[in-house]
Amino acid sequence: MKPIEDCTVGIVGLGLMGGAMALALRPLKPAKILALETDRLTLDAAKADGVIDDGWLAGEDGDEQTAVMLNRCDLVFLCLNPATLIRFMGRWMGAFRSGSLITDIAGIKGNIVAAVERTLRPDLDFIPGHPMAGSEKGGFAQAKRCSFQGKNYILTPLKRNKRENLDFLKALIHGMGFGRITETTAEEHDRKIAFTSQLCHVIAAALIDCEADREITRFGGGSFEDLTRIAMLNAPMWTELFLENKTELLRRIEQFEGSLDALKTLIAGDQGEALEQRLATVRDRRAAMNG
Amino acid sequence: MKPIEDCTVGIVGLGLMGGAMALALRPLKPAKILALETDRLTLDAAKADGVIDDGWLAGEDGDEQTAVMLNRCDLVFLCLNPATLIRFMGRWMGAFRSGSLITDIAGIKGNIVAAVERTLRPDLDFIPGHPMAGSEKGGFAQAKRCSFQGKNYILTPLKRNKRENLDFLKALIHGMGFGRITETTAEEHDRKIAFTSQLCHVIAAALIDCEADREITRFGGGSFEDLTRIAMLNAPMWTELFLENKTELLRRIEQFEGSLDALKTLIAGDQGEALEQRLATVRDRRAAMNG
Repeated sequence: MKPIEDCTVGIVGLGLMGGAMALALRPLKPAKILALETDRLTLDAAKADGVIDDGWLAGEDGDEQTAVMLNRCDLVFLCLNPATLIRFMGRWMGAFRSGSLITDIAGIKGNIVAAVERTLRPDLDFIPGHPMAGSEKGGFAQAKRCSFQGKNYILTPLKRNKRENLDFLKALIHGMGFGRITETTAEEHDRKIAFTSQLCHVIAAALIDCEADREITRFGGGSFEDLTRIAMLNAPMWTELFLENKTELLRRIEQFEGSLDALKTLIAGDQGEALEQRLATVRDRRAAMNG
Repeated sequence: MKPIEDCTVGIVGLGLMGGAMALALRPLKPAKILALETDRLTLDAAKADGVIDDGWLAGEDGDEQTAVMLNRCDLVFLCLNPATLIRFMGRWMGAFRSGSLITDIAGIKGNIVAAVERTLRPDLDFIPGHPMAGSEKGGFAQAKRCSFQGKNYILTPLKRNKRENLDFLKALIHGMGFGRITETTAEEHDRKIAFTSQLCHVIAAALIDCEADREITRFGGGSFEDLTRIAMLNAPMWTELFLENKTELLRRIEQFEGSLDALKTLIAGDQGEALEQRLATVRDRRAAMNG
């Protein structure tokens, strides 16, 4: 891969994450940042703000534009929901520029990796990734508020990935402000993410699901707000993520239910000493975790 | 009640909240801030930092000191865990200065109100309160990091409270930086708090209870961290709060389990449309809440 200063970077999908990626890439001075997007107003705004250098409208009449745009890019960030991403790759695999490096940002990796291995042209490289950042407020207009500083990034490299491309992408990720980069398998990613991300979103949703009082926040001291902020989720995307990672997620929900039930039993049985001991163990365990 | 500038304010218990109260009261220029505390090092540090004007050591040999200190105060903040607070009132009711106003900060109100109504001298006033602030890091040394700015404060006034004392306390609370003050009954407080505070702490504890991997935070993108920060809880205090509000808390845990189970069923049944609809309802409901 040539130096980033000589690269034309393409962003496919200028939503919250695509927009934030474009913003974080700019200080690294790529030759050009192009974007492909289905919404014309978003493209116009991104161009007017200088977030991108040029925009291409995808959609019904945008076929030719999509092909032209992809053919210009040395590096492509696919910032789409998982199912859309897999459809996009199936349809446009022929259009990528030979030798280009592709990556994605999907919150699930098993099905993405399978699709990539099934469809990727031999002259392209694709490194699946998951930037652990986001916001409960979606859309390009919110991209500026999405900070990458010190955040985690997971990569699930394929055996066929070129070492130099992996090193290039990791340097770029750090350059965008991310902190720890973890390399793992798609299976391990999906197992861990079922807990740290999907289960947390299910819990937040369940908390709001069981309380209709809008004024309940009068009684909030921070913990309720912190636990439920992510209940303002992007419903179609999270439905996809939950269902796509169903087996792991259900296993995690059941583990959590087991722990909740154990605490409930201690409370119901007035077992103060055992409860305090269990809470102390939890406190120490959480305190020993980073972040 | 005389103006705050002429009041000697007493803080009983210089932990995180007692210390934060003293810090927040200082800019309101009370005549003096005194503190009663069982730990000599804490008292010395608070005096050296100018957080308090004078400190009194409670404990085995501190009986005389406790009585002398309480007799000097026009306004007393009891910043103790619920059971300690109830014991303290039982033992020291005779020592408060006639006409003084007392308040507390306990996270449960039913048993506090019952104890106050049982033991309060007719020449004293006691307005039960619950500042909805705190931190997972306890102790006086952390008090500076505990902000009251814009936070909620719940008061559960008694019928016998003097109107002027209630107005005085509310002005003081706003003066300390708190935002919304909600007046309600102890029963309503305990019902709502079981949801916004205690259930959230049980959930955070259960999340950590079911995952022993210290490196799991490599896979964290903010939601896991937000949902589990409060798992670093003060185990003895929360054990007390959970058990004291057992009936309401168990009811809330079961409501939550019902909602969690409904979401689990939709996921297990691959009911994408119904799941997306339920998540969208949750998102709108949370977005309509303040804070």
